[in-house]
Order: sequence, then structure tokens, then C-alpha cells
Amino acid sequence: MRQGATSVDSALEELARLPFEDLGFARLDYHRALRKGFPEVVLGTGKTPDQVAAISQRLAAHHDRVLVTRVDPEVFEAVRQSVPDARYHAQARLIVVDRRTADPTGGMVAVLCAGTSDLPVAEEAALTAELMDCPVQRFYDVGVAGLHRLLAVVPMLQAARSIVAVAGMEGALPSVVGGLVSAPVIAVPTSVGYGASLNGLAALLAMLNSCSPGVAVVNIDNGFGAGYLAAMIARNAAA
Amino acid sequence: MRQGATSVDSALEELARLPFEDLGFARLDYHRALRKGFPEVVLGTGKTPDQVAAISQRLAAHHDRVLVTRVDPEVFEAVRQSVPDARYHAQARLIVVDRRTADPTGGMVAVLCAGTSDLPVAEEAALTAELMDCPVQRFYDVGVAGLHRLLAVVPMLQAARSIVAVAGMEGALPSVVGGLVSAPVIAVPTSVGYGASLNGLAALLAMLNSCSPGVAVVNIDNGFGAGYLAAMIARNAAA
Amino acid sequence: MRQGATSVDSALEELARLPFEDLGFARLDYHRALRKGFPEVVLGTGKTPDQVAAISQRLAAHHDRVLVTRVDPEVFEAVRQSVPDARYHAQARLIVVDRRTADPTGGMVAVLCAGTSDLPVAEEAALTAELMDCPVQRFYDVGVAGLHRLLAVVPMLQAARSIVAVAGMEGALPSVVGGLVSAPVIAVPTSVGYGASLNGLAALLAMLNSCSPGVAVVNIDNGFGAGYLAAMIARNAAA
Amino acid sequence: MRQGATSVDSALEELARLPFEDLGFARLDYHRALRKGFPEVVLGTGKTPDQVAAISQRLAAHHDRVLVTRVDPEVFEAVRQSVPDARYHAQARLIVVDRRTADPTGGMVAVLCAGTSDLPVAEEAALTAELMDCPVQRFYDVGVAGLHRLLAVVPMLQAARSIVAVAGMEGALPSVVGGLVSAPVIAVPTSVGYGASLNGLAALLAMLNSCSPGVAVVNIDNGFGAGYLAAMIARNAAA
Amino acid sequence: MRQGATSVDSALEELARLPFEDLGFARLDYHRALRKGFPEVVLGTGKTPDQVAAISQRLAAHHDRVLVTRVDPEVFEAVRQSVPDARYHAQARLIVVDRRTADPTGGMVAVLCAGTSDLPVAEEAALTAELMDCPVQRFYDVGVAGLHRLLAVVPMLQAARSIVAVAGMEGALPSVVGGLVSAPVIAVPTSVGYGASLNGLAALLAMLNSCSPGVAVVNIDNGFGAGYLAAMIARNAAA
Amino acid sequence: MRQGATSVDSALEELARLPFEDLGFARLDYHRALRKGFPEVVLGTGKTPDQVAAISQRLAAHHDRVLVTRVDPEVFEAVRQSVPDARYHAQARLIVVDRRTADPTGGMVAVLCAGTSDLPVAEEAALTAELMDCPVQRFYDVGVAGLHRLLAVVPMLQAARSIVAVAGMEGALPSVVGGLVSAPVIAVPTSVGYGASLNGLAALLAMLNSCSPGVAVVNIDNGFGAGYLAAMIARNAAA
Amino acid sequence: MRQGATSVDSALEELARLPFEDLGFARLDYHRALRKGFPEVVLGTGKTPDQVAAISQRLAAHHDRVLVTRVDPEVFEAVRQSVPDARYHAQARLIVVDRRTADPTGGMVAVLCAGTSDLPVAEEAALTAELMDCPVQRFYDVGVAGLHRLLAVVPMLQAARSIVAVAGMEGALPSVVGGLVSAPVIAVPTSVGYGASLNGLAALLAMLNSCSPGVAVVNIDNGFGAGYLAAMIARNAAA
Amino acid sequence: MRQGATSVDSALEELARLPFEDLGFARLDYHRALRKGFPEVVLGTGKTPDQVAAISQRLAAHHDRVLVTRVDPEVFEAVRQSVPDARYHAQARLIVVDRRTADPTGGMVAVLCAGTSDLPVAEEAALTAELMDCPVQRFYDVGVAGLHRLLAVVPMLQAARSIVAVAGMEGALPSVVGGLVSAPVIAVPTSVGYGASLNGLAALLAMLNSCSPGVAVVNIDNGFGAGYLAAMIARNAAA
Repeated sequence: MRQGATSVDSALEELARLPFEDLGFARLDYHRALRKGFPEVVLGTGKTPDQVAAISQRLAAHHDRVLVTRVDPEVFEAVRQSVPDARYHAQARLIVVDRRTADPTGGMVAVLCAGTSDLPVAEEAALTAELMDCPVQRFYDVGVAGLHRLLAVVPMLQAARSIVAVAGMEGALPSVVGGLVSAPVIAVPTSVGYGASLNGLAALLAMLNSCSPGVAVVNIDNGFGAGYLAAMIARNAAA
Repeated sequence: MRQGATSVDSALEELARLPFEDLGFARLDYHRALRKGFPEVVLGTGKTPDQVAAISQRLAAHHDRVLVTRVDPEVFEAVRQSVPDARYHAQARLIVVDRRTADPTGGMVAVLCAGTSDLPVAEEAALTAELMDCPVQRFYDVGVAGLHRLLAVVPMLQAARSIVAVAGMEGALPSVVGGLVSAPVIAVPTSVGYGASLNGLAALLAMLNSCSPGVAVVNIDNGFGAGYLAAMIARNAAA
Repeated sequence: MRQGATSVDSALEELARLPFEDLGFARLDYHRALRKGFPEVVLGTGKTPDQVAAISQRLAAHHDRVLVTRVDPEVFEAVRQSVPDARYHAQARLIVVDRRTADPTGGMVAVLCAGTSDLPVAEEAALTAELMDCPVQRFYDVGVAGLHRLLAVVPMLQAARSIVAVAGMEGALPSVVGGLVSAPVIAVPTSVGYGASLNGLAALLAMLNSCSPGVAVVNIDNGFGAGYLAAMIARNAAA
Repeated sequence: MRQGATSVDSALEELARLPFEDLGFARLDYHRALRKGFPEVVLGTGKTPDQVAAISQRLAAHHDRVLVTRVDPEVFEAVRQSVPDARYHAQARLIVVDRRTADPTGGMVAVLCAGTSDLPVAEEAALTAELMDCPVQRFYDVGVAGLHRLLAVVPMLQAARSIVAVAGMEGALPSVVGGLVSAPVIAVPTSVGYGASLNGLAALLAMLNSCSPGVAVVNIDNGFGAGYLAAMIARNAAA
Repeated sequence: MRQGATSVDSALEELARLPFEDLGFARLDYHRALRKGFPEVVLGTGKTPDQVAAISQRLAAHHDRVLVTRVDPEVFEAVRQSVPDARYHAQARLIVVDRRTADPTGGMVAVLCAGTSDLPVAEEAALTAELMDCPVQRFYDVGVAGLHRLLAVVPMLQAARSIVAVAGMEGALPSVVGGLVSAPVIAVPTSVGYGASLNGLAALLAMLNSCSPGVAVVNIDNGFGAGYLAAMIARNAAA
Repeated sequence: MRQGATSVDSALEELARLPFEDLGFARLDYHRALRKGFPEVVLGTGKTPDQVAAISQRLAAHHDRVLVTRVDPEVFEAVRQSVPDARYHAQARLIVVDRRTADPTGGMVAVLCAGTSDLPVAEEAALTAELMDCPVQRFYDVGVAGLHRLLAVVPMLQAARSIVAVAGMEGALPSVVGGLVSAPVIAVPTSVGYGASLNGLAALLAMLNSCSPGVAVVNIDNGFGAGYLAAMIARNAAA
Repeated sequence: MRQGATSVDSALEELARLPFEDLGFARLDYHRALRKGFPEVVLGTGKTPDQVAAISQRLAAHHDRVLVTRVDPEVFEAVRQSVPDARYHAQARLIVVDRRTADPTGGMVAVLCAGTSDLPVAEEAALTAELMDCPVQRFYDVGVAGLHRLLAVVPMLQAARSIVAVAGMEGALPSVVGGLVSAPVIAVPTSVGYGASLNGLAALLAMLNSCSPGVAVVNIDNGFGAGYLAAMIARNAAA
Repeated sequence: MRQGATSVDSALEELARLPFEDLGFARLDYHRALRKGFPEVVLGTGKTPDQVAAISQRLAAHHDRVLVTRVDPEVFEAVRQSVPDARYHAQARLIVVDRRTADPTGGMVAVLCAGTSDLPVAEEAALTAELMDCPVQRFYDVGVAGLHRLLAVVPMLQAARSIVAVAGMEGALPSVVGGLVSAPVIAVPTSVGYGASLNGLAALLAMLNSCSPGVAVVNIDNGFGAGYLAAMIARNAAA
């Protein structure tokens, strides 16, 4: 039996001394870069421009990289007042601060998408992975309706340490890719489609039911999450 | 303006004289073979063995072919008391009476399925199409996780006048097939899978969202409906 | 056993030489007209006007017909800068380029819809079928609440080689039509309705459960897909 | 302004004296026959045979009619120990006690069903309406796939004061009936079907979206509720 | 056996002569007033102002009453150009033409709603029933959270021949009303609510599962359908 | 057996005298403050500014506190015409009238939220509880991705008599909190998230399935309901 | 800013010494009785009889009360081999060990249910609350279809410190109760019903949308969770 | 532009020579071990014992490892007739053939589960990863309701190259783990739970909405898929 003399109260006291900063509306987790290898990422949705700007300013004071997702240009306007070297990627709707000087050290991440309409999500994944020290190769509009477009790039996929496969509608791309390559495939369903696509649920369900092993799935339109996980895998992969 | 002297009542009187037989629990539509080119098909689910036997006996008295779907062996036991030349296809769970003597005259129907577990549905489709005067070629276990298995049979698919593509799980097969061939594809989702397959809903939604044009979908596990429609198409197709 | 000396790598090299054009954001599948008998169709949703214009311009340079679906007038404004002979069908939201000179050679396609609100989807189907070489007859507002309106057109439906049946709300039209005629019926649920219509899901489910055989279903509001499949069937049908 | 001197407490005291009997596991509402014109009906599901028997015995001591729904034969065995004149309708799964001697006084209720598999639900409706003093005419297996079977009985439907229309699968029957007759239509979706019928949800949604006015819907397989409401309407209808 | 000499074709010819008018985008069912006792009602949703105006003008030329539902003021502007005596009920979003001179002859319809936010739907029901010859009594904001407000009006409900009970959120009103009165209750779920109300689905499901018999349900926010059915019942009810 | 001489009619007469005021579009339940310990609260959604203003004016004439939820600034503009001491809390979208002079007497309520985007819902809860005589402590942005932020505040949670835990996305906060403290936890799912969050359904389902006992759930974004219940618990809790 | 010198690693080391016992397949949380005021409760579902017996034996060695939920009689047979004073409550499917000698000290909990079929869930709640030191009063079969049965018990509900309201089908009971009393109401939806009850989802949604404030909800059929929370509230409530 | 002289037909001919074996009911993909680094895995569901036995026998003739998932003991009985060295893992329902002699070479995979009922899924993951050359550490019953049980094992998780986190009910475990460690987390929802767990959908949705980055999700109960992916990551991870 595991038994300890320490009470819960004293253990909580220890944890109470870990580093974070309380802005009232947000508690910034400066310790996360140590635990996770990358600073806290800000989800822009549901935050006011002022809140995003204040959070970004504080994070930029502690870290050499800042990433804010799902923001419109007006939020970026507020952010760059206090973080002048912030950049905005309009298609991917990301704010990025990147003060790194070293070259990327991780393995290669391949980002595929099925159709042109999936590009914003694919770019969100690709930019995230690049910010996490991984070189990225993009293969866009390689959906299964024209299989030779996908098959033509398979040899290039062999070099990838992890693969992000983005698709809406029936979401078949990850299954087909997963059957052809040996790298882990992170599948991203998108809300591209209409009617019975149910805003991406159809693609999500299809990907969860993939008959190809080696495929896992993130939330609909979550390019960030896929790029993050793909980079976690690729930066640890042996050459 | 379209206007008629005939009242609704008299029009209904005309329709009241069309041929059907009222067994109390069922009204047999003997006219259907004329309207649709194939006699009424009996859905076995929810009927007692006695009801199925009585219906089969009456239909067999009027037509050279009878088809009963979704029946267990005990129903067949009841049926063959009154229809001695009825046969039971266990895997497809069909009862078939077939007194035709002529060779099939329709175009070729190709029936594909993604995995071994989809065979019962695929056989239901194939047997139905054969009963409707179409020769059938079967291509089973050609799912997208091992794409070369499917690509190997594509040349043979070129000869088909219509294609039935059966798949469970992520239901990607019809999209891939639809991108490769020029014949109409009837997609059949199956309930093969578990968890987020939601008893076939995932495959159904995927097929409805196919990015390949020329694909239409029938109900989950409805091999009969797909075989019927494929045969309607193939028997009319020019050589 | 099927066994080959060729490795996967060499087979993929073959496929790598098939014709497509990579615009960066899109890979145009010029080979599709050969495989499918009709050039690649562009789904306008989720693409910028500039992307649609560039794609349309390249497709129009290779083919005598171009079809873009689900586009608003401003997209058309961008397209006709580079493709002057493009036309816009406002109700169906289609851009069409049609340089054919020969008469249509396919069998007749009948397009029915249940109510006036279903017209945009029905027109999308009808215009697509016409672009694919099939003459089309339209029968609009023939829903089942006034059955004599439908029954009055049944004799004309007998001449159709395939039928598109468009309906929202309870989606009963394809079942009733399917019970009356011998041609294949492609059912199109529409998002017409409110509340428990669930944006067309109610009609979709109804059509998938049709008690009339010979009915298959496409996605909600997918007039294009239904017209495409109906034309595939009708152009091959023997006279 | 409506204002009263009476406090809530005293009003509740009044209501506290209304007649019911507390069996511990059930409180029998003997007053309901006065309020609703029919005694409390017992839903058998989820009750033990002993509970149903005790409730039935007490209700039979107060009323000339008792109705228990959704019971299996073993429950009936328990009931008839204490209520010897109870009868069991196996197809409809009803226990009925009926000590009336007078002829039915209400208007005619028509009960239709689309297919043979819908009979148990239709019989539940018909037997309930008969127990509520309404003569019933049954029209079974009149689904829309063979429209002439339905049209043949329309003249007889004109005499009904209310109509129960029972259907599974796509649930189109009430819409078609509602377009042809002037009596109120109570639609009953059944769980007959498979796959995308979703245990009757497809039929339920279809009926709720009926394009024919004059149609209302009860729960899936709720023949009792439809028969009850149809009888409430018919027994009040002027001749 | 029922057998007739008449072929389907000749029967369809008869039906082909029934009166309707084809406007191209709509087929007006002038016969409906005979079949159903009330002229065709126009669902405004999805129709252009010009279409609604043209349909209204033609209906007003044939009938003494016209009803158009779910229309915005701009549609009414188009309608009153051609039908000067049309009136617009803004809260209920109805266009009404009413040239009757006789007093209402039907039984009384009671319309209840649970909360102030349900008023638009309740008014749609009440105005529809009034147009169908039934006097209407309104009891608004009588939801179950303040039960005495409902109980205070119960004596007045006893005089109703049918009751429309409108409620959003948890939709409990029809069950409580159904337990207290002997008239048929038509339950109307509304989309009032948020979150888990799922745009009215929660109320819809609750009403379908009512433990009080004598309750049937129409579509979410379908005040028209409830008022129509309530009036069908009340105008036939014996005094 | 419970039996009373009083008929239903006389009991209803008693209840008919309870105090409420009928404004035509609303019946104000002045008795609720007696029954529930707090006056009727007004849900702003679906009511016109004039309706809210009239209701607020009447409630403010009877009670020392008024609470209106889910209102936009323009509604507040209408209200303060007739209730000058009303205040608007923009983030929580509440209108509050508070004329109390005594200090809060209830136990402490702790309000936690997982992320900055959950603040509007958390504030709705906190302001409601304060209006109901309970002091409130706020702990915002303590989501489980940075567990030390939550653990740091656990000692302060020990003093709470009840806890409101607000979270969107995966909704894990209440489970973790419920495992650490002994006070009842009222969980509030929020619609914060995207894709498979299904507008808060994912968080709602997670909270309903909490593996920590002592957790109950209110509707998505229902900060008011949680604050109300938490205050009911805390104001009765022994010191 | 909150900053601490302690690293995460050392904090985790502290927590690593808290008392639990690792059985391989289970880690028993002996500390929970201190944190939560009640020992860990065992969910029987998905555990083998041997696992439940081993866990129960260890918990019974540490605590004076043990509660196991959702177990069948054969599991109890295994448990009482090692815990001879365990008792089985068949209707509620609970195993209980109770070695307390003191009288209950908490406030009164009222447990209501709408129908006889809800008894198993109601008993699970009542027995749980009793085991947690609260006297319980049961009011069963007080559903809203016979409102006087509920109103008759309201005076007794006034004495309750918390109320558990159990209902299936439309789940209206908690809303009505919540409008009448001042104690917190814990609503428990049950899976009692059929068809559109969706195994209790209809009741769950209804309860989440309750128009009566002061109501929170637990999982479908989760009598244990409701009884637990009700007892947490009642045992802290001032007299 | 990419253009090739090779026609589709010749490319398909190449692919037609890739190695697979056609058993009629199955096409064995012997090439997969080369493409994916692990032989084809057999999903047992929906296959007859004879089919599984034949497939297993053929695979065992080509590979040193065979894995069959989701099989009952009777299937194993059939398999071991033809593959004597096959072993059956009853809890995980796996058949395994393992003829390797070398020690595992991959990085460590940690497998966690929230509760005892999740063990079968966790074991399926652990055994799969072990068969794929990765050492596995198991941490079972570390759910978030007793957080110290989880925190106690965090130091050991730091050594893992990838983590499988298995949980049912609210599925919070992966979010909490993902916030504490730097390895990729593969989340597996299980069907453990009842009511609103919706057979695991609640946990699935929660995991897809994880607020911790670095988490991806597989199908409900898909321990195999998680173990496979975790091993793909860990065997490539640099030491």
C-alpha cells in the first residue's frame, strides 16, 4: 500500500508556489514551456482585443515565441500596439511572434489537404509546426477523387516523420494516406461541405473510423492542434 | 389553366379498380411488375413466418420470381411448405424463387465491398441484381487501406454498366471508385464498425458527402436496394 | 496468389506521370474528362473569387464545357474577366461555359420538385444534366399534398430514362414517384422547412428509408450531384 | 390586477382532499375519469407483474373499463388472477377489461397502416379507440409505394371523424392521406425499418414536417396515444 | 381479390383533368378547398416576394380567404400591390385576406402559451383558427413555474372544443394542461430557449413523451399547423 | 385511501384567487418571492424592449430587487426610462435593480471558470449569487491544462458553501474540482469552443458524466441558474 | 505575479505520498472520506464480481460504510463471501455496508418520482442519502398528469432541505416542483419511456431547460448522484 | 504543368502486379508489412470463425507476428487448429502470434486508464504496443476524481516517448495528462458509463475538445488503434 505522512493541505501548499501570473481575467502559465516544450498558446475566440493584447504582451515578455489562434485582423491591430514584432497570417488567422535565430532542428512534417477550401486549416497546421522547429512540406488539393494527384506525391511523403492530413466532406484522405505510408498520420476534419457534412461531423466520424491503423484525429478545423502534435512527434523522431 | 370536369370522386373510383389482393394483413400489389418491371419484393422484418409464407405463396402464384429479404432460417422453413421451389441464401438472408429459363439480358453489374465483414450486404446486392436479369461480377475485400487491391481490379470495372460499392467504417470506397470509373456508383454503407461508426451512420454520412460525382446512396445495409437500382440502370444501358 | 515483381515505388512513379496541373492552391485534374466523361467540376464554396477565376480560366483552356457550383454573383464577376463566354444562372447559383455545337444525344431526364421553394436545387440539377448532353423536362410544385398535380404528369414521366425528385420538409415525393414509374429515381432532399426539418435532415432520412425500390439519394441541396448522376444514367440508356 | 386573499397554503389544502389512492408504489387517480372522460390507463413498461396486477385490480374495482398497455403474456397471467374478466390482445400487447353493455356512441375512427409490420401499433390504436366508444374501420397495408391500394379506400375515409395513420420507414402515409381527406389525421411513426430509420426517428421527423395541414403526431409506436386522441375527437364530432 | 379492367394509364388520365393552375414555378391546387374545407395555404419561406404576390393574387381570385405564413414586411409590400385588401400581422408574420361576412360557426379554441416569448407562435395559431371560423380565447404566460396562473384559467378551458398549448424550453405545459381538461390538446414546441433547448428540440421531445393522453404534437414553431388542426376539430365538435 | 369531498372545480376556484398581474403579454407572479425566497426573474431573450421595460417597472414596484437576464444595451435603454435606478452589467448582459441596504447574510459562494472566454457566464453566476445575499469569491482561468493554477486556489475553496464551476470545450473542471472539495459543485457548461464542441454539448455531456460525486449540471451558458442554485444552497448552509 | 521557487517535480513528489492502495486493477482512494466527507463509492458496471469483491473487502476494512452501485445479485454473492455484513437492495441494485450506530444528523431529503417505473432510481437516491446521514421522505407516483397527487404532498415538501425529483418520459416534474418550493431541486431523468424518449435524453433535455430556477440535473438514471448531492446539501443546511 | 505520356490504363497495370492473395472472401495484403512496418491486422468483428482461421493461417505463413482483434474464445478455438502457437488474451479479446526472439527496441509507451472498467481497452493498447517492439508501462485507475493517484505517477510518465490515455464517462484524463507531460498523448474514449455517456460519445467529444495541446483521439474503445499509433511514435523517437 502507498501511504504518506503528508496531508493534502501541505501538498497543495507546495503547488501553490508554482509560477503563473494572474491578470484577473487570465492566469498565464509561464511554467508550461518547461513542462511541454512550448509556451502557452492563446485561443483568440471569445476574448476581447484588449484581453488578447494584454496576454500577448505578457507572454512576449517571457518567451521568444508567441502564438495566438483564430483571430481577426482587428485583434491583430490591438496586439501589434504592444508587440510590434508580431505578424498576422490572414489565411490561417494566426498571430505569430517569432524571435528565434537558430535553424529548425526537428524532423520533416508533411501537411496535405484534400481541396482548395481546406487551405486555411492546412496553413494553420503548417505554420504551427514551423514555429515548433520542424521544416514543413505542403501538398495541397490531393483529394481522393483524383487519386493520381495523391499518388504522385507519395514518394515525397516517405521522408516525413509525421503527416497532417486535412479534409472536409467525406474525409477519406487520411485513410488512403494511412494505407500508403509508415509515418503517424494526424487527421484534421474540416467544416468544408454542406448539408449532411453537418459542419464537419461527417468527416470527423469518417476519420475516427479509419480502416488504416496509425491515424488519430483532432477537432474539426483544428489545424493548430494537428500541427502541434505532428511537431511533437517529428522533433523527437530519430533521423 | 388546367381544369377538368371530372371530380376527384370519380377519378378515385377509377383507381379503385386497379388489381391488388387484400389478405387482411397485407394488400398484394400484383400491378407492380407492370409499373416497375419487377414484382413486389417482401421485406421480411416485422412479419411473422405465417404472414411471409402466405404472401410468398400468393406472389409465387402470379409471378416467375419472388424475393423476400431479411429473413431467418425459420421463416424459410415456413415458406417452403407452400413454395417448394423456394431457395434460401443464408449469408444474404434472402428467400428466392426463380423460375426463369432465359439467360440474363442486362448489362454487367459490378459489386465491390471494402472488407470481409461486408459480404452479407454485398451478396444481397449481387443476388438481387442477378434475379433482375443482370450478370454480376464480385470484387470483395478491396478497401482503401490496401489501395493496390482495388487498383488491380479497375480494368475489370470499366466493363460494368453500374457499380455497387459496399463499405462500413469510414465508407471511403465509393469516393475512390467514383473517381476512377465512368459508370454510376450506388454506395451502400454498412453497419460494420463500432463506437463512432454509430451503426453505419458514419459511413452513410461519408458517402453522402462524396467528393466524386456520380455517386448516390441507399440506406445502411440495404444491399437489396442497391442491387435493385444497379440492375435498373444496367438492364437499360446500351451495349 | 497474385504476386508481382514490381515494387510499390515503381508503380507510384508511373502514376506520377499522369496529367494534372499544380496551381499551388489547386491541382487541376485534366485527365478526369477521359476517366469520367465530363471535366472536373468546381465547387465554389470556400474558394476566393480569385481562386475560382484562375481555376475556371485554366479549365476553359482545356475543355469545351466548364461548370462551377454554389457561387455568388461577385465570384462570377471575377470569372468573366478571364472567361468572357461564361454565363451565370442566378437561381441555381451556377457558372457555366458551354461551347458545344452538337445537339444533346442522351436520353431524357425528368426533374421534379415538391414545392416552389425547391426550385433553386431543381434548376441546379436540370442545368447540370443539360450540360451533360441530356434533354430535360421540368415538373415543378408537384408535392404530395395535392396528389392530382403529380398524377397528372405521370404519363410524361414514362418517357424519362432517369428521374430527379427534389423535396424538402417530409421528403415524400421520391417514394411516391418511385412507386409509379420504372426509371431510376435520384432523390434530392432540400433544406426547405424549419424546426424539425433540421435543415433537410428529415427529408434526407425519409428518402433513405423509401419503401419504393429504385431510389437512391444524394446530399441535401445537392442538385448538381443528382443531375450529374441522372445524366450518366440517361446518356447510356438504350432508346 | 388579479389578487386573492387566499394563501397558497390554503389552496393546496383544498387540492389535498381530491380522491386518489396511495398503494406505496403507485397513486391511483380515480378522479381522472371525471376530468378526462376515461379512467387512468396503465403503462405496463417498467412495472413488475405484481405491480400491474395490484393496480389493475384496484382500477377494475372503480371503473367499468381498464386498459394496460405494452405488457407481455406473463404480466397478463398475473393480472387475470385478480381480474378474471381481463382479456389479452397479443398482437397489440394490451390487457383490456370491458364491462360496457351499451353500443358505441362516437363517430367513426379510421385506422390506416402502411405495411404489414405496422399492424401491432395499428391494432393498439384501433382497440383503444373502440374501448373509448368509437366504431373503428381498419385499412391495413396501404403504403404509398402502391398508391392505388390507398386511393381505393379514400371514399371510405370520407366517413371518418378522425383518422389514425400509422407508418414506419419514410413515414409518408400521413402526408398523402392528409392531402386527400378533411378529417384530422393523427400520425403515428413506427420503429419499423432499419439503418437510417433510426428506430422510427426518420418517420417521426417526416411526419412532423408534413406539407399537408391537419396532421399532428404522437410518439414512435404510440398506437395507444393516437387511438385515444382520435377517439376524443370522434366522440365529440357532430354527425 | 380486387381486380380491375382499367389500366393504370387510363386512371391517371382521369386524374389529369382535376383543376389546378400551373404558374411555372407553382401549381395552384384550387380543388383543395373542396377536399379539405379550406383553401391552399402559402408557406412564405423560400419564395421570392414576386412569387408570393403572384400566388396570392391568383388564390384571392378564387377564394374568399387567403393565408400566407412566415413572411417579412417586404413580402407584404409586394402582395398588397395586387391584393389591396390583404392585411399583415407583424407579430405572427402572417398575410391574411378575409372577405367573410358571416359570424364564426365553430366551437371555441383555446390558445395557451407558457411565456411572453412564445407569443408570435401563439398568435399564428390563434389567427389561423379564427380564419377557419372558430372563436378563440387566448391565455398567455401561463407556464408551469407559476402554476396558479395556469390553474386560475382552467375553468375557462373547460369550454374549449380544442386547445393549442404553446411552450418552449422544457415544454411541460401541454402535459400539465392535458392532465386537467377533457378537450384534445395540440402541443406546439417553440424555439424559445438556449443551449440544450437545441432550438426547440428539447420541447418537441418532451411533448412527444407526454404522460398525459390526448396530446399530439406539431413541428417546432408551427403555430399555423396547430391552429389549423385545432379548428378542424372545433368546427366539427358538437355543442 | 385518500379521498376528499371537494371537487376539482372548487379547488381550482381557490387557486384562482392567488396574486398575479395580467399585462396581456405577461402574467407577473408576485407570489413567487414568498414561495421561492426571491422575486420572479425575467429572461430577456425573445421579449421586445417595451415588454421588458413594462415588466421591469411592475416588478420594481413590488420588490426591492429585480433581475433581467440575457439583454442587450438597447433593452437597458428602454428599462431605465421607467426604472431609473436599474444598472446594466455589460459583460454578463444583466439588468439589476438592487435597493437592499443590509449586508449579505448567506454563506460564501465560489465561482470558478476554466478560461478567459468563460467570463461572461461566470460573471452572470457571480452577480446573481450576490443579489441573493451571498458573498462571492471569483477564481477565473483555472482550467485543467495548467493544473497548478487550480491547485493553488484549492485552500480558498474549502471555505465555500457551494461552488459554481464554469467551463467550455471538454468541460473537465467540475470533475477535478469535485474530487478535491467537500462543497456541492454546480457545473455550468459554456458554448466556448468550436467544431466538436457542438456549441457546448460536449462540455454538457462531460459534466453529466462526471466521475466525481457531488456535481450537478445546469443548461449551457446558464450562469444565472447556477448562481441562483448555489446561493439557495449557501444561504441555508450552517456556518 | 505569483512565482515560486519550487519546481513542479518537487511538488509532485509531495503529492506522491498521499494515501492510496494499488490493487493492480484499482487504486483505492482512502483519502477521499477526508476530502469529501464520504468514502469512495464503487460503480459496479464493467467490473468483474471478483474485482468488486476485492475492492469492497478493502474499503470495508477502512471505513464504516461501503456503497456499491449498479450490481446484479451474482456480484453480491461474491461480495458477501468477504464482507459478511453487506446487504443487497434488489430494486435499487445497491450493495450497502453500514456499521454506523448514531442517528442521522442531517436535514430531511425529500425524494419524489413521477411514476411507478421510476422507483428503482428513486430508491437508489433515497438509500444513498440515508447512508449519508440524512432522513428521507419518499413521495412516489406524483407525476404531473394527475396534478392533485403532487399538490397534496407540497406541504410536506416545505420541510425538506433538498429535494430529489425523479422522472422519465417528458421529465416535467422538477419544473413543477421547482415552482412550488424553496429548497434546491436535484432533477434525475430516467430512461423510462420509449421511442422519442431516446432512453431518457428527452427527460434530460427537458430538465436542463427548466423554466423554474433552483433546479440542477444529474445523469440519466443516476439516482446515486442525486441522493449524494442532496445529502451534501441537506446535512449542511441550518435547522 | 505536370503531364505524362502514360495513360491511366498502363499505370493501373503496374499496380495490378503488387503482391496480395485473394481468398475469395478476403484479399490478404502481404505488402503492408513493407509499407507500414507491421503486417496486416485482422478485425475479428463480423467475420466467421472459419474466415478468421483461414486468414490467420495464411498471415502466419508469411509473417513472424499476427494480431487479431475483437474476438471471442470460440474464434480462438478455430484459429489454434491451424496456428498452434497462437495465444488468446481474454481480457483484451486479442489473438496474438509472436515468434520474435529479439528484445524490444522502441521507446517506452505509457498506458494509463481512468478506472478499473477501462482495463480491457487499456490492455488491448498495451499488448498491441508490445507486439510492435515497444516496452510498456501500465498505470491503471488513475482517474481525475482522485487526482493524487495520477500525480503520484507523473514522474514515471516523463520517461515515456508516447502516452495512451484511456477513459470513459467524462473523458477528462487526457486533458489533465496532456497538461502535465511533454510526450504526445493518444486519447481513447471508452464506452464505460451510462445514460448521457451515449456509449462513449461523451468521452469522445470531450477528448476532441481537449484544452491541452498535444492530444489526438481514436475511435471509442479502439485500444488497438491507440497502441499501434503510440508504438509508431515511440519506436521512432530518439533516446
